[in-house]
Amino acid sequence: MPATLSCRYPEGGITVGHFARNHWYVAAWSSEVGDKPFGRRLLGEPIVLFRQSDNSVAALLDRCPHRLVPLSMGVCKEGRIQCLYHGMQFDGTGRCVHIPAQTAAERFGLVWLWMGDPALADASLLPAIDKYGAPGWAVMSDGYQHHPSSYLNIIENLMDPSHTTFLHANTIGNPLAEDKPVTTEKNDRYIVAYRWVENSDPTPHDRRRIDVGDIKVDRGQYFYFHLPAMSRVETIVIPAGTARTEENLSSKGMRTHSYKFLTPETDSATHFFWLHVRNYQVGNEQAAANLRAALEQTFAEDLQIELAMQRAQEETGLRQVVALEIDRAPSLAVRMLKRMIEAEADRQPAKETA
Amino acid sequence: MPATLSCRYPEGGITVGHFARNHWYVAAWSSEVGDKPFGRRLLGEPIVLFRQSDNSVAALLDRCPHRLVPLSMGVCKEGRIQCLYHGMQFDGTGRCVHIPAQTAAERFGLVWLWMGDPALADASLLPAIDKYGAPGWAVMSDGYQHHPSSYLNIIENLMDPSHTTFLHANTIGNPLAEDKPVTTEKNDRYIVAYRWVENSDPTPHDRRRIDVGDIKVDRGQYFYFHLPAMSRVETIVIPAGTARTEENLSSKGMRTHSYKFLTPETDSATHFFWLHVRNYQVGNEQAAANLRAALEQTFAEDLQIELAMQRAQEETGLRQVVALEIDRAPSLAVRMLKRMIEAEADRQPAKETA
Amino acid sequence: MPATLSCRYPEGGITVGHFARNHWYVAAWSSEVGDKPFGRRLLGEPIVLFRQSDNSVAALLDRCPHRLVPLSMGVCKEGRIQCLYHGMQFDGTGRCVHIPAQTAAERFGLVWLWMGDPALADASLLPAIDKYGAPGWAVMSDGYQHHPSSYLNIIENLMDPSHTTFLHANTIGNPLAEDKPVTTEKNDRYIVAYRWVENSDPTPHDRRRIDVGDIKVDRGQYFYFHLPAMSRVETIVIPAGTARTEENLSSKGMRTHSYKFLTPETDSATHFFWLHVRNYQVGNEQAAANLRAALEQTFAEDLQIELAMQRAQEETGLRQVVALEIDRAPSLAVRMLKRMIEAEADRQPAKETA
Repeated sequence: MPATLSCRYPEGGITVGHFARNHWYVAAWSSEVGDKPFGRRLLGEPIVLFRQSDNSVAALLDRCPHRLVPLSMGVCKEGRIQCLYHGMQFDGTGRCVHIPAQTAAERFGLVWLWMGDPALADASLLPAIDKYGAPGWAVMSDGYQHHPSSYLNIIENLMDPSHTTFLHANTIGNPLAEDKPVTTEKNDRYIVAYRWVENSDPTPHDRRRIDVGDIKVDRGQYFYFHLPAMSRVETIVIPAGTARTEENLSSKGMRTHSYKFLTPETDSATHFFWLHVRNYQVGNEQAAANLRAALEQTFAEDLQIELAMQRAQEETGLRQVVALEIDRAPSLAVRMLKRMIEAEADRQPAKETA
Repeated sequence: MPATLSCRYPEGGITVGHFARNHWYVAAWSSEVGDKPFGRRLLGEPIVLFRQSDNSVAALLDRCPHRLVPLSMGVCKEGRIQCLYHGMQFDGTGRCVHIPAQTAAERFGLVWLWMGDPALADASLLPAIDKYGAPGWAVMSDGYQHHPSSYLNIIENLMDPSHTTFLHANTIGNPLAEDKPVTTEKNDRYIVAYRWVENSDPTPHDRRRIDVGDIKVDRGQYFYFHLPAMSRVETIVIPAGTARTEENLSSKGMRTHSYKFLTPETDSATHFFWLHVRNYQVGNEQAAANLRAALEQTFAEDLQIELAMQRAQEETGLRQVVALEIDRAPSLAVRMLKRMIEAEADRQPAKETA
Repeated sequence: MPATLSCRYPEGGITVGHFARNHWYVAAWSSEVGDKPFGRRLLGEPIVLFRQSDNSVAALLDRCPHRLVPLSMGVCKEGRIQCLYHGMQFDGTGRCVHIPAQTAAERFGLVWLWMGDPALADASLLPAIDKYGAPGWAVMSDGYQHHPSSYLNIIENLMDPSHTTFLHANTIGNPLAEDKPVTTEKNDRYIVAYRWVENSDPTPHDRRRIDVGDIKVDRGQYFYFHLPAMSRVETIVIPAGTARTEENLSSKGMRTHSYKFLTPETDSATHFFWLHVRNYQVGNEQAAANLRAALEQTFAEDLQIELAMQRAQEETGLRQVVALEIDRAPSLAVRMLKRMIEAEADRQPAKETA
């Protein structure tokens, strides 16, 4: 009889409730912040967003300091937020009552929050999205799902090309199960796992997106993880043997740059914002609707796995029992994140930034 | 960046699970106790009420002492209660098996329980309701809402006139937001916060209740808190300048005496029984129905705030962050209650009364 | 005023999470294990069942050792189970990854699991079911209910004839409330409580099952509890005064052998499998459907009681307050079970069998 299974791959030592804070996190789609206060929990804290007189977004801790009623239950009045209970008003700096304010920014149709030391907040640190708004490229945005699982599980999933054959067999997966190894590279800011599958048949997902015809293709997949919580997946399908110049990739290839912005709600739940840009079917509304539906189905397939993993992790206190070759990039991503959180904690106590 | 918010107004030191017990609490409306046993949790304990052969109400701990099955699942048999499981029968004193019985009383259409030492139970301690059943006055009763929040939050809400302008703007509130200060007085048994607003226009709520006409009015509001858990709000609207004799108030004023009986279910949930008496629209069923609807809507507005406060209090361990002038009467009410509970605990261990 | 109720009958000292493991427990009806993996929690552990190439049933811990995803979310492939996430495959011994496998068996349309030391698993220890498949006897099987209560509560309920008069008054109970004492006997493997009621009128339940006519009957009831978790109830209704030979009981009596197989899901929830064999209305589908409905209603009546007891036990930490004469057999059953679990724990640490 085997003994109790032991844990071969510990969590990476990220303490419950510790997040990297000195970074821009997506808080909402811009379209979510309108005439009324908008409340959402981020990195474990209740936050309220509202628009000021100049239409910029302000963010406050979502508790009236008087009786702790959520300000998001209140109303906006001339660029201020007014508590539902006794009508106390606060401006975007939390003035009058010194309620701690967050620093907000808007870009790519998203509201970003700096959840750490305001002195370090720098708009130049907001991520770039290559090809966003470029001619010949279409944007699909406003994607949102609530994933009741740790963002670590989602990061690992998004850095793991090998599961698409099985879990996503009916959506984006390739039923041919090409078992090509991936190459992993990294620097200080990101890690990327990529592979090229050459001279192969187009997949069902390829054919659903464009009329590929009866040719062989080369297929490239790049899975980036940008610290602390952004996934970028670039995929290219191009006639086999085409030279891979940037010019050729865009003019002869079918390219998608897919972004997921993971904002921890708590240690065990995540806001999953997504958008992508593509260079095919630009202006074709029906094709776009089909593609959005396929992606949402794919993310829902991931969600059910992440949820099951979360439950098993909470029950066992383990994250994994055996480690496989396919875990190289996901494990590296979590280790990099752990080091980043530790380095930030060394600079200043994370608790005092709350 | 501000440090973590500190608590400027601690809870008042009322220990979880400690209630003032040697007092009459409302357990049910009389109409709720009919042919079948009626179970309800009061002050943290499951209680079953049933009618005896003489139609009086008996109250027992709602657990069959044999296997702990709730007696409220059983049936009434000739003035006794019979357990559903093995048919064990108990009379209103819990005879045969020495199940602890409570002392019950009925008045004003309500069933009252004495939750403490039976030796101290005295019907003369039941509260009086001024004008209840008096000629020219109408009773509106049988009001009940379940409020999943501490009764302390509800007491504070009921002692706080200033929130009606904001939270109740569409129901009983005055959109003119007359910001008149309140006067607070107290004695051993109750505290009252009151104010008169003179020579003002009638409010929308005034006009909905009676045809005021085109006059100026004086408006009086008296917010009483009677220890340990009864709220009495008396309001008067009277032509401006009228001498405030008791005779004038009743003959020329529109008067309402509104009672709320707060019976703790647990530390974090409350039975909210309400009734009121009024000297206007007596016998007008339609006006009464309109008034009842407006009040229930008002209490539901309070309920959403109390619920949000409860959640924030449980998450933060705080009850309040900043204290304002408007908190004088609510804070005093909670402090008086705390002292009462402590005094009772000094006389005998609260636990043994359970 | 009575002091706090004290516990006169402690739980029997069965530690949370300790079960007798070296025994056959029912895991599923055979019909539940088909083309797809079937997951169910047993004795606190998630287990997945699936059919191998030879159609036999295999059982594994329901966690892929790679990322802890439940294997029951996956698919069956040529007698193996394949994880939904990355396609890892396992055979019925858990080969490749040394995932702990359980020992399974099938009998009486049920899948049985040996939850303890595989070296002790012996098919001869599977229970016998008297008359199952015998000529002149009909089988009613595939019964299943989920009871969110400890199996100890269910065992006590099933060893307690006295509650049927009250709780089951409208189903199998006898409204005449014949209060005959029971005789209790036991040996190492089981305990039985039985009684004969002689020369009495047939009950409504008797008359619903067969056309008894206008006679007096003798009625026998035998309540067996077989360690660790099987109930057998044998009932006989026979013309009054008939000699009770085995030959007479079957040829002149209406006999039912009713089995309940209680497999703990956790400490506070139980899988309730049931089947019975009878020697009347054999081949009468309508009578069988009526009987099944009456039994399911009866078990649902028990379920509501077990659930209420479970809640009260969790709140009070007690199992019982007063002990009655009717508790002799139920209490004995729980004590025997406690000794069995302790004896097994002495032989080897229960934890290492997980």
